[in-house]
Amino acid sequence: MDFDVIKPLLSTNATSKILLLVMDGLGGLPMEPGGKTELETASTPNMDKLAESSMMGLHQGIRTGITPGSGPAHLSLFGYDPLQYEVGRGALSALGIDFDLQPQDVAARGNFCTVDEQGRVTDRRAGRIPTEISERLCALLLEKIDIPGVEIFLRPVKEYRFLLVIRGEGLKAEIEETDPLILGKEPFPAKAMNPGSEKAAEIIREFVKQAKVILKDEHPANMLLLRGFAQIPTWPKFPEAFGVKSLAIAMYPMYRGVAKLVGMDCMPAAHDYEEEFTMLEENWDKYDFFFLHIKKTDSYGEDGNFPAKVHEIEKVDALLPRALALDPDVLIITGDHSTPSLMKSHSWHPVPVLFYAKTCRPDTVTSFGERACLQGGLGNRIPAYELMPLALAHAGRLEKFGA
Amino acid sequence: MDFDVIKPLLSTNATSKILLLVMDGLGGLPMEPGGKTELETASTPNMDKLAESSMMGLHQGIRTGITPGSGPAHLSLFGYDPLQYEVGRGALSALGIDFDLQPQDVAARGNFCTVDEQGRVTDRRAGRIPTEISERLCALLLEKIDIPGVEIFLRPVKEYRFLLVIRGEGLKAEIEETDPLILGKEPFPAKAMNPGSEKAAEIIREFVKQAKVILKDEHPANMLLLRGFAQIPTWPKFPEAFGVKSLAIAMYPMYRGVAKLVGMDCMPAAHDYEEEFTMLEENWDKYDFFFLHIKKTDSYGEDGNFPAKVHEIEKVDALLPRALALDPDVLIITGDHSTPSLMKSHSWHPVPVLFYAKTCRPDTVTSFGERACLQGGLGNRIPAYELMPLALAHAGRLEKFGA
Repeated sequence: MDFDVIKPLLSTNATSKILLLVMDGLGGLPMEPGGKTELETASTPNMDKLAESSMMGLHQGIRTGITPGSGPAHLSLFGYDPLQYEVGRGALSALGIDFDLQPQDVAARGNFCTVDEQGRVTDRRAGRIPTEISERLCALLLEKIDIPGVEIFLRPVKEYRFLLVIRGEGLKAEIEETDPLILGKEPFPAKAMNPGSEKAAEIIREFVKQAKVILKDEHPANMLLLRGFAQIPTWPKFPEAFGVKSLAIAMYPMYRGVAKLVGMDCMPAAHDYEEEFTMLEENWDKYDFFFLHIKKTDSYGEDGNFPAKVHEIEKVDALLPRALALDPDVLIITGDHSTPSLMKSHSWHPVPVLFYAKTCRPDTVTSFGERACLQGGLGNRIPAYELMPLALAHAGRLEKFGA
Repeated sequence: MDFDVIKPLLSTNATSKILLLVMDGLGGLPMEPGGKTELETASTPNMDKLAESSMMGLHQGIRTGITPGSGPAHLSLFGYDPLQYEVGRGALSALGIDFDLQPQDVAARGNFCTVDEQGRVTDRRAGRIPTEISERLCALLLEKIDIPGVEIFLRPVKEYRFLLVIRGEGLKAEIEETDPLILGKEPFPAKAMNPGSEKAAEIIREFVKQAKVILKDEHPANMLLLRGFAQIPTWPKFPEAFGVKSLAIAMYPMYRGVAKLVGMDCMPAAHDYEEEFTMLEENWDKYDFFFLHIKKTDSYGEDGNFPAKVHEIEKVDALLPRALALDPDVLIITGDHSTPSLMKSHSWHPVPVLFYAKTCRPDTVTSFGERACLQGGLGNRIPAYELMPLALAHAGRLEKFGA
């Protein structure tokens, strides 16, 4: 949906509340022919009951057949078409570890890697060194690297991955990646794609040159690769674009990061689902829109652990009455993408949606599951980025278009 | 789908096989209220069995309410939105008779026709003269017509139809058709739609002027009409765009033509369905993607011959086990458009789709028919050009979008 269409229609005096409850990787597949999916298997009496007065359906985050990454998948749920609003991996990495990325920063995702004596990459992940080694190497590089006129940040992320941020005046991120992606090649030089990015590219090349010397006696991580150079995007901010004071509640940095990216306030990391729901209750009066993120449905899907994913869904169902007690005007329960335990990965399959509001036109679906949702009022492939305008409408927050 | 979105997501090492089995004009209508369609009437035990482990639905080739021609309908199945990728009939005709159209060529589809003494069209198809007469007339024209500075090709196609190609420097195809489409009118002059096409239009007018004299004592084909001026389009080629070595198997020139247009390899014309399936078997190891075209479902629909169309569908169902024995990773059975026997013509009605893959999320549909497909997981109006990205996803040929 075009923000320009929504903007002039926003009500100015609405007090309604919208809750977007995202179970990450919710959509699934049966483990064997004729079987049920994770959601179909889970006992979800509260969601099934709510389904009776809701519109049901399935959404698609990006386009038919396209498997969404977590960043684009959430952007789509937040109303941003991911093909129109692309965010670089560097920026996502920064947001994913609570790094406070500034407009004058250029961020990149880094890998520690192994090179041979000729400087050719022999292991792009340096044997997946543990995070502690990355921490030491980041500290070593930060201590020794000396590039005047620019501030450099290095943060370990996980295992061999780290974040590089350079901060300074006049830096642009249109820079070619140094990762050759295949073995037996030397890392590429960081080339500027246009003159505006030449300054940043030169800093990156100098950084790589010094890093090569500093790391050369390390083993196995004796070199580094840089990808996804990116800056913080300058998009319409969610709270202004949709006219809702907005709060994100999420246990993992990546999801707080995407929420921050679009301008939502963020709670600090909760320790469990109960605490997330408590945060929701305690902040209910202070915000109009709430994004509550449940991570482990995806994690267990990625692990191929069907029963554990089922169990996580059931845990959320058990907590649902606490959200309902707050009497939200609109409550959307869905996932950001599918993560079938069968596939142990994100997938392109459409994602079940339960859309509750007092103004819902009921459909005939009375349970929350992939097959049931096929018959629902939202249809079976509504673009995820159309859910927000629909939520605003059902929350009484959108005026009529035209006279 | 934008090819630019797909391209960077293509897997480089997939070995999966995709089979697109097109029964031309598959979609139908009941002959009387309360009746069944052709597909619903046909006994299709193999397809019904496969439906149980497939996603079902209906596709739409162009847009709601728009009846597709054969060219655009197939382009859409091949992943090209026909509103974005338009191709003239002249170019299709050329490709359909194995004419090796060059970038500097302008092609047109021609009809031999009958005109009265005032030059007004009395029969647009010259009594459907047999192909042999067209052959003689084409040879006669080629022998006598003399236009310096341009190379002219004339090829009989079928009955009264022929192909005209002019080859030379600076030729463009934006030229108005000469066929008045109704009887009692003189053929229109070939007018250039813009200055860039003036040179070609002038050659065409001279060609028509000379042809009129040469043909004037012939009977009934004493004149010609030209339509669909076109050049070969410069689109992304199917094999590169989707990363699949691709083979087309079709009995009729038009369908091989469209397949060639997008860069597929083509088998020579088979004589019957059995031979088409044999070609499929013999080439299974050599390609990743197979387009197998069944023509007569459409022909009988056009004839209004409901039982014959039903019978053709049953013949294909009986051959299906041969395709299944090859163990395709993705098998799509559908039509390019609807051709209801009731209407004796192409129609805009959505077209049933059976989409089989091991990673299908099952729906509740257990037979292959228009009404059954309405309840299917693909929805009831998926754009035909979204089937290819979906096929690539289910074939494990697409990486995740974003992190």
